Amino acid sequence: MIEAPASQICFWNDFPPLRFDSARQCLVILDQTALPFRVRFRKLARLEQFCEAISTMQVRGAPLIGMTAAFGLALALKKDPGDSALLEAAESLLSTRPTAVNLRWALERLCDKVAASSESARHDAAIRCAITLQSEEAQRCDSIGRHGFSIIERVRALRCAGGRPLRILTHCNAGALATGAWGTATAPLFRAALEGMPLQVWVDETRPRNQGGRLTSWELQRAGIDFSLISDNSAGTLMQRGEVDLCVVGSDRVSARGDVCNKIGTYPLALAAWDNGIPFYAALPSSTVDWHTDAITDSDIEEREGDELLEIDGFDKSGSRRRVRIAPPGIRARNIAFDVTPARLISGGILCEHGLFAAGRAGMNRLRNVCRGEPDDG
Amino acid sequence: MIEAPASQICFWNDFPPLRFDSARQCLVILDQTALPFRVRFRKLARLEQFCEAISTMQVRGAPLIGMTAAFGLALALKKDPGDSALLEAAESLLSTRPTAVNLRWALERLCDKVAASSESARHDAAIRCAITLQSEEAQRCDSIGRHGFSIIERVRALRCAGGRPLRILTHCNAGALATGAWGTATAPLFRAALEGMPLQVWVDETRPRNQGGRLTSWELQRAGIDFSLISDNSAGTLMQRGEVDLCVVGSDRVSARGDVCNKIGTYPLALAAWDNGIPFYAALPSSTVDWHTDAITDSDIEEREGDELLEIDGFDKSGSRRRVRIAPPGIRARNIAFDVTPARLISGGILCEHGLFAAGRAGMNRLRNVCRGEPDDG
Repeated sequence: MIEAPASQICFWNDFPPLRFDSARQCLVILDQTALPFRVRFRKLARLEQFCEAISTMQVRGAPLIGMTAAFGLALALKKDPGDSALLEAAESLLSTRPTAVNLRWALERLCDKVAASSESARHDAAIRCAITLQSEEAQRCDSIGRHGFSIIERVRALRCAGGRPLRILTHCNAGALATGAWGTATAPLFRAALEGMPLQVWVDETRPRNQGGRLTSWELQRAGIDFSLISDNSAGTLMQRGEVDLCVVGSDRVSARGDVCNKIGTYPLALAAWDNGIPFYAALPSSTVDWHTDAITDSDIEEREGDELLEIDGFDKSGSRRRVRIAPPGIRARNIAFDVTPARLISGGILCEHGLFAAGRAGMNRLRNVCRGEPDDG
Repeated sequence: MIEAPASQICFWNDFPPLRFDSARQCLVILDQTALPFRVRFRKLARLEQFCEAISTMQVRGAPLIGMTAAFGLALALKKDPGDSALLEAAESLLSTRPTAVNLRWALERLCDKVAASSESARHDAAIRCAITLQSEEAQRCDSIGRHGFSIIERVRALRCAGGRPLRILTHCNAGALATGAWGTATAPLFRAALEGMPLQVWVDETRPRNQGGRLTSWELQRAGIDFSLISDNSAGTLMQRGEVDLCVVGSDRVSARGDVCNKIGTYPLALAAWDNGIPFYAALPSSTVDWHTDAITDSDIEEREGDELLEIDGFDKSGSRRRVRIAPPGIRARNIAFDVTPARLISGGILCEHGLFAAGRAGMNRLRNVCRGEPDDG
C-alpha cells in the first residue's frame, strides 16, 4: 500500500467539482468530460449553460446534479424572481436527466424555500439554500464514510487473515466527482486510507461512458490508493477466484422497498456477488431514496444516444484529444444508462448518513422513520 | 426484418477468414485486428508469422486458431520434416494462446497423422490433414446451425406470440470469423436467416477487445441480419425487461462435466439469464471439449496485457486509424481473457454437431459416447 498524506487523500480540496463564486455570481465546475486528460474548469451563469452542463455530463453523479441544479435555479432567480420564471427554470433543469431523484429533491427543497420569500429576497434565499445543500451533502458523505469504515473494518477482520489488504470492487464513479467531497461508495475507501488501512481496489471500467476508467481511476490515483482497472466483464471471475472481499456502489434512485437503480452493469455485478457470497452494499445520501415509488419502472430509466457506445474520446500519442469510431459505420446501438438491482441482491445493505439499513421493506421503513426524526425501533 | 439473399447471408464465401494458397504455399488470412475498418488479407508462410498472427489475434476464435496452427505446422514441415523440428514447431504454436483447447486438439491430430509418414511424405500428408480439418470444421458448424435452428424454432413458438422476431443475445464473436464458415453461436442465426425467420440480435460489445462491436457487428451487417450493439453491462437489464428470448455463446474449452470456458463476461451473462428464466446455450464443435479436465482452473486461463483495456483502436473523422488512450497514464489494469461458467448455469445445454446435450455429468457422458461412435443411450 502507498501511504499517502491526508492532503493527498482529500484531493477534492484542490480540485473542487463545484465552487460557487459569489463575486462573479457563477458556479465554477470541473468539466468531467475532459477528465482524466485535462483538468478544465468552466463557469456556469445562465440557465442554458447549467442545463447543457448537466445533460452533456460535464457535471454528473446524482448528488452533484442536484447541487448544480440548485445553483442554476438560484442564479436564474436573479434575472427573474417571479413565480412563472421559477417554475419554468425548475422544469428545464428537471428535464436534463430523468433518472436521478436527487435532482427533483434538491429543486423541490429550493422551491419550497423561496416560495415563502418576497420576490426581491428570492435570489439571496436561494443561493443560501444551495450553499446549505452543498455543505449538508458533504457532511452526509463524511458520515457515509465513517459508518462505511466501521463496516469494512469488520469485513476485513473476517476475511483478511494475515493482514492482507482488503479488496473492494466498485462500479462507475460514486466518488468526490459525483458529490463534491468524499463521495458515496468511495467515502469508506477514502476514510479507510486516512486511517491507514491497506486497501486494494478493483475499478470497473463502466462502459459505455467509462466513468470508472476515466473518473474513479483519476480519483484513486490522486488519493494514492492502490487500484487496478478491470473490464466490467471481469468482475465476476475475480469474485469466483476469491479476489474480491466486498462490493460497494452508489445509486441514482432507491425505491421505497430498497431496489437500487444505479449505473448500467450494477445488476450483473450484484448477481455475481450473490453467487459468490460476497457482501454487496449500495452507498447513498438518504436524499436518493424515492419514497413515493415502490418499483422503479423502465420509463424512469434514461436511454442515451447510441453514439456513446460507437465512438470514444481518448488521447493519441502526440497528446491530442481525439474522438474515434470503434464499431462499423451505419449500425445501431441501444444505450440504456441505468439498471435496477432488486433489494434481494443488496446483501450488505443500504449504507447512508444514518448508518446501515437492510435493503427490503423492514429496513427501508426503519430508514424512513430515522429520516423523519422518529424513533429507530430497529 | 431485412430479407437478405442467401449469397449475402453466407458472406464468408466472399471474405474467407482462412484460405490455403497451394501455388504460393501460404495461408491467406483475413486480418481481424483491422476489422471492421479495413478488409485486409495477409499471407502467412513462416512459422514465426503464424505464431505472431495467432498471439496478436489477427486470427482468433478457438476453431480458427486450431486450423491456422495446423497449416502453420504443415508448412513448417516443408522446411524441415524431422521429428525434432515437428515437435519444436508444435510447441511454438501451442504456446501462442493457452486457453483454447482446439489448438492442442488440431496439432495432436496433425502430429498423429504425419508421425506415421516417411519424412519426405510428411509435408504433403500434413497439408492434406489441415485441409481435411478445415472442411470438417465447416461441416460441423453447418450441423450446429441445423440443430440450433430446430431449437430456436421451438423457442420462438413458445415465446414469440403474434410472429414477432425472435430476440437472441450473443457475446464476443463465435461467428464465421472464428471458424471459417457459419460460426458456432452464430450458425443457428445464419441458418434461421436463410430460412426466413425474423430475428433481432443483441450483440454484446465484449470489452476489452470489442469482438462483438468490431467483428460480430461486421458479420451481421454483411449478412443483412437485424441487430443492435449493446454494452456488456446492458444485457442483464434487457433480460429483466423481457427483451431477450435466448442467449447463445461459443466456447474455448468445455470441461468433461460441462463447465464452459468462454470470453470474459460470459459468466455474468449466464447469471442474468438464469435469474430471468432465459435459456442459455453454448455452441461449439465437439473438439472444444477437454475430456481430460473436470474443472477448468485459473492457470488454464490466459491473462493479456493491461494495455488492451487502457488503449483502443478506432477511426477518426478523416478516416485514419488511430490508437487512443482512454484511461489516465500510469495506472495498472488487470486483463483476464476468459471466464468459466459452471454447468448449472448453461440452462439450454451444449449445442454441437451431434445435437443438444445437457450441461452436466450425464449429458456430457452421452456426448462422449456419441463422439466415440458408441450408442447414444440418452
